[in-house]
Amino acid sequence: MAKPIAVGLLGLGTVGSGVVKIIENHQDQLIHQVGCPVVVKKILVRDVYKERDVQVNTSLLTTRADEVINDPEIDVIIEVMGGIEETRRHLLQALQQGKHVVTANKDLMALYGSELLATATENGCDLFYEASVAGGIPILRSLVEGLASDRITKMMGIVNGTTNFILTKMCKYGMPYEQVLAEAQALGYAEADPSADVEGLDAARKMAILARLGFSMNIDLEDVQVKGITDITEEDLDYSKRLGYTMKLIGIAHRDGDKAEVSVQPTLLPDSHPLASVSDEYNAVYVYGEAVGETMFYGPGAGSLPTATAVVSDLVAVMKNMRLGVNGRSAVAPQYEKRLKSRSEIFSKYFVRIHVKDEVGAFAKITAIFAEQGVSFEKILQLPLKEKGLAEIVIVTHRASQQAYEDILQRLRDLEIVHQVKSSYRVEGNGN
Amino acid sequence: MAKPIAVGLLGLGTVGSGVVKIIENHQDQLIHQVGCPVVVKKILVRDVYKERDVQVNTSLLTTRADEVINDPEIDVIIEVMGGIEETRRHLLQALQQGKHVVTANKDLMALYGSELLATATENGCDLFYEASVAGGIPILRSLVEGLASDRITKMMGIVNGTTNFILTKMCKYGMPYEQVLAEAQALGYAEADPSADVEGLDAARKMAILARLGFSMNIDLEDVQVKGITDITEEDLDYSKRLGYTMKLIGIAHRDGDKAEVSVQPTLLPDSHPLASVSDEYNAVYVYGEAVGETMFYGPGAGSLPTATAVVSDLVAVMKNMRLGVNGRSAVAPQYEKRLKSRSEIFSKYFVRIHVKDEVGAFAKITAIFAEQGVSFEKILQLPLKEKGLAEIVIVTHRASQQAYEDILQRLRDLEIVHQVKSSYRVEGNGN
Repeated sequence: MAKPIAVGLLGLGTVGSGVVKIIENHQDQLIHQVGCPVVVKKILVRDVYKERDVQVNTSLLTTRADEVINDPEIDVIIEVMGGIEETRRHLLQALQQGKHVVTANKDLMALYGSELLATATENGCDLFYEASVAGGIPILRSLVEGLASDRITKMMGIVNGTTNFILTKMCKYGMPYEQVLAEAQALGYAEADPSADVEGLDAARKMAILARLGFSMNIDLEDVQVKGITDITEEDLDYSKRLGYTMKLIGIAHRDGDKAEVSVQPTLLPDSHPLASVSDEYNAVYVYGEAVGETMFYGPGAGSLPTATAVVSDLVAVMKNMRLGVNGRSAVAPQYEKRLKSRSEIFSKYFVRIHVKDEVGAFAKITAIFAEQGVSFEKILQLPLKEKGLAEIVIVTHRASQQAYEDILQRLRDLEIVHQVKSSYRVEGNGN
Repeated sequence: MAKPIAVGLLGLGTVGSGVVKIIENHQDQLIHQVGCPVVVKKILVRDVYKERDVQVNTSLLTTRADEVINDPEIDVIIEVMGGIEETRRHLLQALQQGKHVVTANKDLMALYGSELLATATENGCDLFYEASVAGGIPILRSLVEGLASDRITKMMGIVNGTTNFILTKMCKYGMPYEQVLAEAQALGYAEADPSADVEGLDAARKMAILARLGFSMNIDLEDVQVKGITDITEEDLDYSKRLGYTMKLIGIAHRDGDKAEVSVQPTLLPDSHPLASVSDEYNAVYVYGEAVGETMFYGPGAGSLPTATAVVSDLVAVMKNMRLGVNGRSAVAPQYEKRLKSRSEIFSKYFVRIHVKDEVGAFAKITAIFAEQGVSFEKILQLPLKEKGLAEIVIVTHRASQQAYEDILQRLRDLEIVHQVKSSYRVEGNGN
């Protein structure tokens, strides 16, 4: 049998402890898959003497990162400590010394993924990060494997469990956002400061990671258009239900030719869309490949065991590549130049809800604005409002460019008879 | 670079042509992943001079199987010719000569999988068959990878596109079975002789393959309890809708301790179950692992391009293993002794619809039979019928053993006041 592969861990929290346990308990299966044993050689911790729920020989523990990163016998660094700037320095240093890296850190990968992947490629190292997106779903590996014989043109994801939990409850019980958020916080599904989740930033990080990999293009976090769920009202959910839609916070990455668009925004999906029934804290990623067609991966988005399992899967992949001599080739630096679509090249259907003064000719003035931009209607509802002298108009458009639609919104807001544009959402069709 | 790996193909139909095209068009990506080139060296065909939609040097073609199987330079045999007995002999011969095998043949794997896998293990060969179950979904690979660090206890699948198409249309349009079947045949979704699909045999083959792999146990086709969709009526679908369920042909493989059960039968799923929204000809497999929890894989069940893509993924896995020297270790012969649950160890909820004579005390007599077996009710509906003197009773039970439930059914049929037991289905809860 080949000689053991030595691993160093940065961090020994719940995910790190899970990784250590899996490596111990599944040594036989790991040897079966890879052809050699794996040993944990050093672990960076904050406090060597802390009580832990995994038994580790204290001689493995250290509080000095360089003792792990600079150990010449360590082949693979597993990063499960979290954090950004300091962690980035550790991983760059590890890669520069030719060590392969497995990380579960989505914040780091979204912000510094391009730099880290380039460094990995320069040094012939693997840098795998399956656990950073939808912890329990092997989505990144599926993308990489699919890419060997397919071309991925679209990915749509429910990649944030907190917001999906909140929207599911709002839809199901007709409860307002603030009340559901408070409940989610009480249950531990949302953090005390929920802004990274509810404002869409967490989902945007994951979509940047997915788009970068799936399109092999250096998509950065700032390339992702982001809108969160904080403005969604019970009225919006009620209309979406009546029109046969389900509201979800959807990340979309779409490629036409060599140009890409990436966004995260509340989106109305037809009830029959595979993503519409993904409920509660679950995640799912829908992928369209030219050869395979539609596929979807569904599972837990987080949790320490799913995440640890994903980390070990990456470790197995690194070890296989080491033994194959093909490290630094798959899942590394993007091969295409980044080209983003302009607003005039991004197309979608839209839902808009407007309060107008209940005057003769009001409806005609509104429809004229859409017509001038060449945007036609798929569905229209007009209803009287309790507020005196006002009517509510709900429109679902046919496909329009983002530019045309945003121009329409601006002109509607400027219109004297329009009291308020209450809300506006992207609408997806079925499938690709 | 390492020397090329040589491949022999058995068959050059639509899937075989797709495989040849992918190998040609993605040579660079394949080299990237594996570290060496791959060449197609020989192809078994029926007619060398037939026109094909893929350009192949005719010197590669042969009508003699032994020229492919016995070629000492060929490392991997890809079987895409279909058929059972002759194909089985070819593959056994190939494995005995130390050649690795990739097959898309579910009939063969369901019937002779145990024998073929044992032969592969004896000869240190890989035998991969991703394309045999849910063509476009990388479910077998996900099971194998998951098994390295998890224990799978349950798999549920919609693994037959034809029956899912038929049930979707029946539910959606309230159309009777025969009419939808005729339409499916006209559209090419069902074959002229649809019996293997509609009687559940095709799904049973795939569930046997899934259970054998996921539980690492020699599950055979005859171990699978099978019931098809031919008796499902519009009334049943109507009741299931009213009760908040969706009817699907579901394969279930469940393991408790070291005992397994595998079945395929029409099943009522709660509308909120992830499998309930899998529509039309799509397939999906839901997997419960002790570490990862619930995951689901969704995609096209068939089609020549998805199938060819799956075959090439298997080829890549074989080639990696060849270069790692770990062939014949993953995805091969089962490691646990087969132990099947008895009827008294298989538990489920059940839906039963009964026509009874509308007499005083009829309902009490029926409930007494359930009570004697210790089976309680979750839901009951009683409705008058147009037929004079009859009433309809619909019951959804709490969990009961298959034995207790079948005894109840028999006793109900024997009861004088029972006019007919109209229908009976398994009912699944949400999630695991």
